[in-house]
Amino acid sequence: MSNNRSFEEGKLEKMNRRDEILDAAGQLFSRQGFHATSMRDLARAVNLQGGSLYAHIESKEEVLFELVNRAADGFLSSAEMIPANLTPGERLERLIRGHLEVMVRELDNATVFFHEWKFLNPVLQSKITARRDAYEGHFRKTLEAGVASGQFQVEDVRLATLFVLSALNWTYHWYRPGGKLTLDSLSRHYRDLVFKTLGAG
Amino acid sequence: MSNNRSFEEGKLEKMNRRDEILDAAGQLFSRQGFHATSMRDLARAVNLQGGSLYAHIESKEEVLFELVNRAADGFLSSAEMIPANLTPGERLERLIRGHLEVMVRELDNATVFFHEWKFLNPVLQSKITARRDAYEGHFRKTLEAGVASGQFQVEDVRLATLFVLSALNWTYHWYRPGGKLTLDSLSRHYRDLVFKTLGAG
Repeated sequence: MSNNRSFEEGKLEKMNRRDEILDAAGQLFSRQGFHATSMRDLARAVNLQGGSLYAHIESKEEVLFELVNRAADGFLSSAEMIPANLTPGERLERLIRGHLEVMVRELDNATVFFHEWKFLNPVLQSKITARRDAYEGHFRKTLEAGVASGQFQVEDVRLATLFVLSALNWTYHWYRPGGKLTLDSLSRHYRDLVFKTLGAG
Repeated sequence: MSNNRSFEEGKLEKMNRRDEILDAAGQLFSRQGFHATSMRDLARAVNLQGGSLYAHIESKEEVLFELVNRAADGFLSSAEMIPANLTPGERLERLIRGHLEVMVRELDNATVFFHEWKFLNPVLQSKITARRDAYEGHFRKTLEAGVASGQFQVEDVRLATLFVLSALNWTYHWYRPGGKLTLDSLSRHYRDLVFKTLGAG
């Protein structure tokens, strides 16, 4: 029993350590970039010897993929949680709120997702591209449904989707959680601007 | 006379070489990032020995600043060239078109401008921040004037400016010159979407 418990505790500690490493990597990669961050920087940030880091992670690229994939998880699961029976307008409102929420909650990972993903190898990049396309699909289909139902007036759904997602994505460049502008207020303003963009002001 | 001419020719050649180096640096920095590009990569890209590169440029950071500053020049001079006697709507239309034009013409520099500028030292960063703020000011003042004249209906001019600039900025992530979507068509669609966003559809 006690052996078992300490084994479980050891495993848990290792998982916590791994999370700690990923958090530190997210901060370092988003601030100074993937290439400017060495394994030594990463080890120092979590108070480990360089060598001990390899007990928890395989390579810097593995860490990069996990960070980018976490952001993709955040965005996708937020979209997938929206109930199917909502109107396109209600759906879009949830999509906007969810996008900004994930961006704010995972600011470091989102920055890594947008800036550093190009440093993944082609196989890993294509996995992320597929998830990105799926996520963009949630927005595009919502706009299409809104046009079909007459709630949105849009000339070119593809370009309108890109326009809206662009405006939302860029937020990580300037929004700082804990500042004057709350997430609620940002979401409400952006919801209004997006709806006007789609002729549903 | 002939001595003078060859001196001038030498100067001209040196300037051309410098431009060539800057173009190559723009490509390398935008594709693989500032930190992942070595002086050796840069020398190889322009068929120079590593040492000879220093006859043309001082340091990698000097090159980064010049690239970022070139993009800033492009954006600012495009905004400053707009005649003062236009209506806010006409002005905004020119701003949108100018922004997308610079983005497309200087895709590499614009990418470096948005992604790599954080690797400048604080003194150089603050020079760029000042130019960015000045550029954003052109958009904000145009929106303010349009609200004052009743042409635009906007609740929060600062957020609406950020929203519009975000949508325009993100273009460099996906737009590829020479593809199906011409700059004219993109500008017209984005102009319509921005005007709807501002309640002037």
